[in-house]
Amino acid sequence: MISTHRLIDLMREVREKKPLLHVITNRVAINDSANGALAVGASPIMAEAHEEVEAIAAISGALELNIGNLTPYSIQSMLLSGRAANQAGVPVVLDPVGAGATDFRLNTVQKLLSELDIAIIRGNAGEIAALAGESWGAKGVDAGEGEGDVLAMADRVARQWHTVVAVSGAVDTITDGRQAYRVKNGHPLFPFMTGSGCLNGVIQAAYAAVSQNYLEASVAASVNYAIAGQLAGEKCAGPGAFRQKLMDELYLLDEEKVQRYADIEEVTV
Amino acid sequence: MISTHRLIDLMREVREKKPLLHVITNRVAINDSANGALAVGASPIMAEAHEEVEAIAAISGALELNIGNLTPYSIQSMLLSGRAANQAGVPVVLDPVGAGATDFRLNTVQKLLSELDIAIIRGNAGEIAALAGESWGAKGVDAGEGEGDVLAMADRVARQWHTVVAVSGAVDTITDGRQAYRVKNGHPLFPFMTGSGCLNGVIQAAYAAVSQNYLEASVAASVNYAIAGQLAGEKCAGPGAFRQKLMDELYLLDEEKVQRYADIEEVTV
Amino acid sequence: MISTHRLIDLMREVREKKPLLHVITNRVAINDSANGALAVGASPIMAEAHEEVEAIAAISGALELNIGNLTPYSIQSMLLSGRAANQAGVPVVLDPVGAGATDFRLNTVQKLLSELDIAIIRGNAGEIAALAGESWGAKGVDAGEGEGDVLAMADRVARQWHTVVAVSGAVDTITDGRQAYRVKNGHPLFPFMTGSGCLNGVIQAAYAAVSQNYLEASVAASVNYAIAGQLAGEKCAGPGAFRQKLMDELYLLDEEKVQRYADIEEVTV
Repeated sequence: MISTHRLIDLMREVREKKPLLHVITNRVAINDSANGALAVGASPIMAEAHEEVEAIAAISGALELNIGNLTPYSIQSMLLSGRAANQAGVPVVLDPVGAGATDFRLNTVQKLLSELDIAIIRGNAGEIAALAGESWGAKGVDAGEGEGDVLAMADRVARQWHTVVAVSGAVDTITDGRQAYRVKNGHPLFPFMTGSGCLNGVIQAAYAAVSQNYLEASVAASVNYAIAGQLAGEKCAGPGAFRQKLMDELYLLDEEKVQRYADIEEVTV
Repeated sequence: MISTHRLIDLMREVREKKPLLHVITNRVAINDSANGALAVGASPIMAEAHEEVEAIAAISGALELNIGNLTPYSIQSMLLSGRAANQAGVPVVLDPVGAGATDFRLNTVQKLLSELDIAIIRGNAGEIAALAGESWGAKGVDAGEGEGDVLAMADRVARQWHTVVAVSGAVDTITDGRQAYRVKNGHPLFPFMTGSGCLNGVIQAAYAAVSQNYLEASVAASVNYAIAGQLAGEKCAGPGAFRQKLMDELYLLDEEKVQRYADIEEVTV
Repeated sequence: MISTHRLIDLMREVREKKPLLHVITNRVAINDSANGALAVGASPIMAEAHEEVEAIAAISGALELNIGNLTPYSIQSMLLSGRAANQAGVPVVLDPVGAGATDFRLNTVQKLLSELDIAIIRGNAGEIAALAGESWGAKGVDAGEGEGDVLAMADRVARQWHTVVAVSGAVDTITDGRQAYRVKNGHPLFPFMTGSGCLNGVIQAAYAAVSQNYLEASVAASVNYAIAGQLAGEKCAGPGAFRQKLMDELYLLDEEKVQRYADIEEVTV
């Protein structure tokens, strides 16, 4: 069981080390992803040019790859930066946005998983179901609702690719295929903020930059993000206010709040 | 005359059906467009890759094409997705951003109109004037001020392309060339929110996804958006607050508010 | 010494002339840059297509080039628009985002400086240090902390390229290599808003569009932006609220506030 103290230590380490995060992401989420990374204490750089992605990935604390707006150019950016990160020992986080929406996305995710070592996969249940080869009622890039067992799917993906899988939802499920956790913080306004899952992936990268135990890093990132959303949502009537207050709460999160609100449990794989 | 009850029914249908909206739009407006689509109850996907746009358009409730940041690549994305939508009977909404600013934009809009069946064109007066071949004091992508008769211009464009034309402004004008409506809700802060017209186009698409009567759909979308803006603006000192509250009001709009505030009139073409 | 009256006159001129600003910028900052330009009274157009950038640059009040997300395509957009602007006598503002982060960025900036006449370079201390050939503790696109003499570096860059250099930071330094000013307004939340430096560059362009004295224009823009940030920050607990209130304060800035808060001093070069 990961202690609340450990979660707090990692939150502090992100703020103290201010890791450089190399983020290749979609045009919808790019601004919130950068602001959210700054709010938790990291230093984001959203570079995609083939001429520079290898150099940047190699000196970063972590690399985050998000397939929300793929182009042939950006796929190549991801492969170049991913290989450079792997070679330099920089952890890579993958966000398979809408993996089940088209063959093109699923094939791209599988190519990235085959060619790169991925530390953490962060997706919603529909996306993880696509990776697990299960049918699911996903709708475009939204999670949708399915009947499958989320933990069983996540475990299978984790074991297949030797990675941590973080499934976001009303309850988050995080597993490395041997140990698993559930994080029960969060708020119903999250799905009304476009790119809220993408920002989650960036925060996973911030924590992967400060702990080589990626299961622990992923749980800590999930708790950080979900508590901030919970505190933001309690003060909001709608998604416009939520988006603003989420950034404030990420910035204002402190030891006392994590101590008081963290709601996690270990579950049997 | 479209009844307020019908407007309310359509608002509910968007929320119940949660139509998948395929949106190809500019980088400025893309985030607000996705958030606004979620706020009214739709499920947006902003895909542009040639490998997947046909597949996504064909299964969407509506396709929205916005020419705000054209590239040769995105023009091809629009043609591919537009043809797939037409073939599948999926309505297409076109937003001719800055159509009068350069020959390149006007030519592109005319190419899209010639090759695709468009259900609704949503533009400001300067943009519709460009399509009608009239001079107008437009400035870049902003509406500018002109002396022309907005309804006459809109009617001409509607008849030429067999489409509904929705002209946004202090008063919105919506026509199919035979019947026309004015929507008088709105707020003076709208032009200070970049991409506010683009989001209007996305909401037109959300309503086109639930009613094959595109004139009715366009009036309902215009009323929905304009009332939300009016209620947001009344609470705001400036455009930063407006942008946030607009999202909240889109999310919070309900039957009672539409009943109370809808200010539309039928006008003689 | 530039008088407060002159700063106020320029602020009014931006609002009265509503200059068209052609902005080629990165995907992170593009939305805030457009909204901020509207808030100070300008009319932004974010065009990048090779087919139209020359035509738009030539009729604009100013052109702003920001290298935050370079691609081979956007570099060509910058060269085409920059040459057209130079030929038409339209001032060009350059924002060398992350110039020290990679050789690719530094080479691109030097190419732009060699081929174009630049009216104002707007960067943080790390970026200006890179142009001056000095080492600096920059981190990706963030300013970092260095030991160099900011004014000496800025002067050198200004004289080398016959341009005004505006260095943003806790205190802004603006120089043309002969005369220099410091602007002491601002707020510690600025670095937590991604693209806040990029928006500064756009506001520099808005002022360059109304005064051919680019030193004066740059000081006025810096004061406008820094006072708005100061007033916004005083009302905010975190960066989410700051971003919104900054837009409001840019829109609400008036003569009285500039009179009351402007904190500038001339410094000896």
